[in-house]
Amino acid sequence: MEQGREITVTAVPGLPEIVPGFEFGAALAGSVDIADGDVIVISQKVVSKAENRLVDLSAVEPGAVAQKMGAELDHDPRLVELILRESRRIVRADPERGILITETRHGFVCANAGIDASNLRHPGTVALLPEDPDGSARRIRAEITAAAGTRPAVIISDSFGRAWRLGQVEVAIGMAGIGPLDDWRGRTDRAGTVLEATSIGIADEIAAAADLIRDKTSGTPAALVRGLGRYVGADDGPGCGAQIRSGSEDLFR
Amino acid sequence: MEQGREITVTAVPGLPEIVPGFEFGAALAGSVDIADGDVIVISQKVVSKAENRLVDLSAVEPGAVAQKMGAELDHDPRLVELILRESRRIVRADPERGILITETRHGFVCANAGIDASNLRHPGTVALLPEDPDGSARRIRAEITAAAGTRPAVIISDSFGRAWRLGQVEVAIGMAGIGPLDDWRGRTDRAGTVLEATSIGIADEIAAAADLIRDKTSGTPAALVRGLGRYVGADDGPGCGAQIRSGSEDLFR
Repeated sequence: MEQGREITVTAVPGLPEIVPGFEFGAALAGSVDIADGDVIVISQKVVSKAENRLVDLSAVEPGAVAQKMGAELDHDPRLVELILRESRRIVRADPERGILITETRHGFVCANAGIDASNLRHPGTVALLPEDPDGSARRIRAEITAAAGTRPAVIISDSFGRAWRLGQVEVAIGMAGIGPLDDWRGRTDRAGTVLEATSIGIADEIAAAADLIRDKTSGTPAALVRGLGRYVGADDGPGCGAQIRSGSEDLFR
Repeated sequence: MEQGREITVTAVPGLPEIVPGFEFGAALAGSVDIADGDVIVISQKVVSKAENRLVDLSAVEPGAVAQKMGAELDHDPRLVELILRESRRIVRADPERGILITETRHGFVCANAGIDASNLRHPGTVALLPEDPDGSARRIRAEITAAAGTRPAVIISDSFGRAWRLGQVEVAIGMAGIGPLDDWRGRTDRAGTVLEATSIGIADEIAAAADLIRDKTSGTPAALVRGLGRYVGADDGPGCGAQIRSGSEDLFR
């Protein structure tokens, strides 16, 4: 039968337990063949581990605001203290369900400033988001190029909840070699009608696709997505910041 | 090198222009080999065409509310009339940017009640969402089984914008043979920590993955996703309704 266009998503096997200072480039290049035009998607959690963004809660001194909010939300006040430090604004705090949604320093709107405690070796330890996920992606991309001689794109991804729809989906929080959006605005469709509002969040869609080969208990920190070379550029590109809605563009602040 | 788990996403080639009454099952089964455990993702637009959900705007008589809102939003009042008919609630109306976000009768929160005018043969014609996208998915699944003798899952997808992040992403609006969520709550991670809030929107992630082989001008109405058989069941399952946040679960109504 006729063969259509195809994309493959492959789990990258065999990465070791990630420790601070870990260099992903050589490890990834040693584990899978990485070609020009491939996209490597790496979980935020392991990038945070490699960048030593783990915090032992016992070393955190909650301030008065964190103590009050922690009591209201039934959250550990030390965790709330970290969330507040990582955020520039509280978007919603819901005492009834113990949910705290903030805008992080990067501009991401997500629960608990993206801090979480799963898949860490030591209970009582939590992982903050990378300081600069676009920078992390650029660094890992350069490491891969040094090790493999090729220039894939790199996306750092994390699971975010959404308004209106249950279930978390994986989204891109940092990227290099690919832009966040494929912008069709102003182009025309097959019938000649101008496409009015079609700017596609391709980096988020790639992060979602990569999540499908993961098993939340198995530790699959990286995936290789092949078949999207048309989106991968020589430059690192604008990074994830280009996809954050500014205050004036956002109806749900 | 060691081979990890793999998923493939393939564009289904060779479907004809879709007309009212079109039966997808036999056409899809004649165009690609569909195996048990595959997921077929079909664009809402072609399902709406097959279900005769196209409306000629010249036949729509806008009421007083639609005329007032159309003037405020700089929208065609006949389109606003259709949006209001397809909605049960207005979530946001922003005159400054001409944006109207509503909750559809199905419970989806999206711009213009999911009505759009791109990729239709006749200017002045718009496509409404299917009346019952879960029902559409069940019907198409049964057609495929009748034609091919196999039982894939079927997802009907559409592009929705998101709060906080620019760019539309493809999400599932109807499904059969797969559930919307892969629920890990209560299970433990590798370190034995209970995963607190990990319910993954797999149907939305599959819809996003399928969108990556599309070209918005080329008319690629269907994709086949292989490698996710663990999510595909014999029963049609609960459908997309199971993923809509109820009023009490939704902080952004």
